[in-house]
Order: sequence, then C-alpha cells, then structure tokens
Amino acid sequence: MNDSVMDDAGLPADVPLAAVTRGELVESVHRGRLAVFDPMGGELEAWGDPEAYVYLRSSAKLFQALPLVLSGAADAFGLTDEELAVACASHNAEEPHLAAVRSILEKAGLTEGDLQSGAHLPMHEPAADELIRRSEEPHSIHGNCSGKHAGMLAVCVHEGYETLGYREPGHPLQRRILGLIAEVCGVEEDEVLIAGDNCGVPAFALPLHSFATGLARVATGDELPDHLVGAAMRIRDAMRSHPFMVAGTGRFDTELMERTHLLVKGGAEAVLAVGDPEGWGLALKISDGAHRAVRPAALAALERMGVRVGDGEALVRGLHGETVGEIGPLI
Amino acid sequence: MNDSVMDDAGLPADVPLAAVTRGELVESVHRGRLAVFDPMGGELEAWGDPEAYVYLRSSAKLFQALPLVLSGAADAFGLTDEELAVACASHNAEEPHLAAVRSILEKAGLTEGDLQSGAHLPMHEPAADELIRRSEEPHSIHGNCSGKHAGMLAVCVHEGYETLGYREPGHPLQRRILGLIAEVCGVEEDEVLIAGDNCGVPAFALPLHSFATGLARVATGDELPDHLVGAAMRIRDAMRSHPFMVAGTGRFDTELMERTHLLVKGGAEAVLAVGDPEGWGLALKISDGAHRAVRPAALAALERMGVRVGDGEALVRGLHGETVGEIGPLI
Repeated sequence: MNDSVMDDAGLPADVPLAAVTRGELVESVHRGRLAVFDPMGGELEAWGDPEAYVYLRSSAKLFQALPLVLSGAADAFGLTDEELAVACASHNAEEPHLAAVRSILEKAGLTEGDLQSGAHLPMHEPAADELIRRSEEPHSIHGNCSGKHAGMLAVCVHEGYETLGYREPGHPLQRRILGLIAEVCGVEEDEVLIAGDNCGVPAFALPLHSFATGLARVATGDELPDHLVGAAMRIRDAMRSHPFMVAGTGRFDTELMERTHLLVKGGAEAVLAVGDPEGWGLALKISDGAHRAVRPAALAALERMGVRVGDGEALVRGLHGETVGEIGPLI
Repeated sequence: MNDSVMDDAGLPADVPLAAVTRGELVESVHRGRLAVFDPMGGELEAWGDPEAYVYLRSSAKLFQALPLVLSGAADAFGLTDEELAVACASHNAEEPHLAAVRSILEKAGLTEGDLQSGAHLPMHEPAADELIRRSEEPHSIHGNCSGKHAGMLAVCVHEGYETLGYREPGHPLQRRILGLIAEVCGVEEDEVLIAGDNCGVPAFALPLHSFATGLARVATGDELPDHLVGAAMRIRDAMRSHPFMVAGTGRFDTELMERTHLLVKGGAEAVLAVGDPEGWGLALKISDGAHRAVRPAALAALERMGVRVGDGEALVRGLHGETVGEIGPLI
C-alpha cells in the first residue's frame, strides 16, 4: 500500500450523489463514490475517485461465504440454498432467518451458544418490538450477521479448525478469507486493509475499483481462477434465488434482487455491492455513511447501466402524512 | 432573495467537519458549514460558506417561543420557567416533559386533544420501549415538538386567535413568528424561505450568518429592538436554567447547557444553535444531516471560541464492547 492511496483514503474524493429537498431548497446533501467495472478491471462508469479505499463491511459477506462452498462444508452438511443465502445475509431476524441460521448450526453439530456474532435488536422493527414487548434481551442469533458466523463455524467444524477463536484475523479461516478477497478482487493480500468489524470479525478495505471488479467476477464467473468459479456461481445463485434470506421485509437488497436479475449486498456505513451476471460489478459508498442515500444513488446509476427499476425518488413525509420534502439522486 | 443565494443553497459550499475512523482509514466523512458571528453581524469564525441558506428546523424554537412571552400569555397563564423551557424543547417525552406540556395546556384551558404536533415514539428509548411494552400507540404529546405546539396554542388563546388553524403559514401567530425571526436575525421577511416542518408548522431557512447573528442577539440581548430584549432574556434564561426540559436524558443540548453557560438548541437534519451570553452566536449545519457529527464538530468549534467542554472524540464500539473506531472532529 503506497502513501498516495492512504492520502486518497484519508479524505476520499467524493461527489454529490443524492439530496434531500425541502420546499425550494436542498436541505441535506449526500456525497459519495460509485464505480462500475467489468471483470477485466475496465472502468465502465465512475463518480468520485475509484482509487480511494472503502471498507466493504457486510458487502464482503458474499466473499466471506466462499470457503463454505470451497471447503466442501456446504455439501458435507447438506446446506440448502436458503441457508447459503442467509450465510451471506445482513438479515432482519425474522422467523425464516432465525430458522435458517439455527439449521446451519444444527447441521454442523453446533448450537446458538457457539455464535460470537454479538447481540443487537432485530433490524426488522416488528421483530424488535416483539422482543421488547416480551422484555427479552436480544441474543447473538438476532444480530444481522448471525448467518455469516454460523457459516464460518460450519467451515471450522468441517476443516477441523478450532471454533473458539474463529473471529481472530490470524485464525486459518480468516486468513483464507483474506486470501480469497485478494484473489477475487485482483489485489495483493497486503493491499487489503484490515480493521475490526462491529460483529468482531475482520473488516476489509479495498480500492473501490478493485471491489467493483471483484463483484463483476463473482457475478459473471469471468476472470476468476478455475477453482473459484463453481463456488462463486453457487453463492451468487443462492442469493439471487432467495432475496428474502439475504435481508428481509422492506429491505433494499431484497427488493432489488426480487425486481431484477442482479446480485445485491449492502453494508454498514452505506456501502452497496451490485453484480450483473451479464458483465459488470458496481460498488457504491456514500461518504457520510447515510443509508437513506443508497437507494436513490444506486437506482440512478443502475438506470445509466440500462437497468430500469424506477422510483429513485422518495417523498419525505411529515407527521401528518403530508409531503414536506423529497430524497432523490443528483446523478 | 437573489439567484446567487439560491445557487449557493442548491448545493451548499461545505467543508469536512468530522470523520469516523476505523483502523487506519477514515471510513466516513461529514461535511458542513459552521459560522460564529457577533450581535453586530461581524464574523468571528467560519467554516464553509456562511451565506448559504440553512433550514433552522427545531433550532428555531427559541425564536418561535418569543410570542409566548411578548404577548403576555406566559404571565397571564402563570407559566413557570420549566414550562417556558419545554415550549422551546425537542424533548424526550420523559415524564417531566409530558407533565410540563400538560400543565401549559391546562393553564390555557386546553387539552392534549388540541395539540396538532403529530405523533411519534418518544425520543428517549426507555420511554419508547415502555409504550411498546404496553402496546400503546404514541400520541401528539409524545412528539418532541409538543411543548412548542402547547406554547403556540397558549398564545392563540390569550390573543383570541383561532386555535384550529394555528399551524398554517397564514395564521396570525405564524405571521408574527416570521416577522420576529426576520427582525431578530436582521433580514427582510421575504428573505426567509418557508417550507413545511415535519410537525406541521412552517420551517424557516436563512443564510447561516443571519442565523448565527440572531443567536448572538438572543444570547446577549445586544442589537435587539428594545421591545424584544426582555422576552429574549427570559427565554434564554429559562432554557439555561432548565437544560433537562429542553431535551432530556443523554441529549447533547442538555449536557452542553449543564456543563457551560451557553444557550443550546439542536434541530433535525443536524442543525445546532449555540449562543454565548458574553458575545456571540454559533450556527452549525452538518450537510448530510447526520446527528452523530454535531457533537465533535461543535465541541471543536467551541474550543476555538475558548469554551473547553472536552470529549470531542467518541469511540465507536463493536457488539462485543471492543473499540472498532472513533468519531472525531476535522477542525
């Protein structure tokens, strides 16, 4: 990693991607970077600096799940496509998500107690309200990353890795994931920056264009080493076949996969990964981390790529149901 | 209002004010504008363009409460300083807030049913959880603006204005508030842009420097027309004497007033108004509307103004309690 990359990443170059309008004025602006690349690493579209580093956060889950297929664990334990999809999910902790995570653990001979994903209230508000109503504390399984952690644990059991330290960057599974991300995205391992993600496993940062290129490869199977193609296609198709398992009710990832042929995975701090099986990967980072800007920016960029989903603008409603503003794209 | 102002406001000039760091990298950046002006309209400090328009949102409440004192309603109904403070509040809907709002209504011969502030869950999480646990829908009184609305209604009763249409921009009370904001901030009425706030009353936008100048005047009493000085001082001191009533447990406005001699009022979409009785007003807008950036940016600017509060950086913790990042100022 050279210094100029660090300078770029220190204060990333960004451009206005979406805005909240109230009355005649723009009230708030969201800047960001968005890159669309092909599997060869060729730029198709870019707003902002595609060289700047971005933390993939949960958008990395589709890479992090590769060992589950590659190791043979998914087959050995007879995991279903729904279960593979939830292993790539930032799920809502709705009942089908919890059932799929429990099933992965059970098939691997483990229990919820083995999860080290950290607890937080379900992302799905009615599910959260239900816990509050029952005065019940959330457990690890309710955390949006519990499917990823269950998948990681299943690999450990299958490979004979110790399960207790599976979150550590030096653990063989985490070393393997790092190697795979580097391989898929076409960078050296020491070009991948590693920090801690909120659920306790490594968080990875890459130049935006490398991330987009990796997504293009996973979405198409092109430019991947032979030994990775089958696993990438299986992960891709499990996610696209089960959009609900990847997120859930009311979530953008789910909606976008339901309405298109795309592979979609969002991440914390307003990251979005999209892959088109017909040829490209799109990586988006809203610089300020605001989730609300992801949808309008992504839909506008997708339209530029010929994918018309519609509805890139959303009304901002007051407490009386009246329209007080609008959030929409600036690209 | 001239076109250049609209151009500035359309996409406001802004500078990096705060950042979220994870590992070695800045993960997310918050830009904004911050201006410190004296009561004469002289610039003391500025980051970003002080000419750009900003919606005051709830930071306008300290102006919107002026008629409550000016009209004589506060005296006629025997409102306490706590009640004046809650009329300027974006409150947490904790018990003391609800009691104060009910008391204003009762003293004015009204009931909760007269409030048209719109319902949302209490901002204070335990208060919200309590409603959810009881399967109870939130009412208007739980909305953070209910004190402002109760105060507006009290003025209507005292002045003989009709109460039913008190939210409309053309209602005599709202016309009077517009006139007062223009007068205090030193602009013409037609330079104030008006849109709808989420609670249904007008939302006002002003150039940032006019807003800061108005805050300096309310905080000091200097450069105000004689007929406004008493009311401004009474509002100022009610808020500073009862910081809890202005926001509540865990809220930045409350904490900052408890720890300093300052007048403080935040607003939606990451606006902050600060007034120093010793001579200046500070207006801050985080361009992307992110609340989390207000504290570090404001504390860094306050330190430049000689007010040391400390703690402008905050740790970002993962779900296991470990430090994964930090949010801190860039100024």
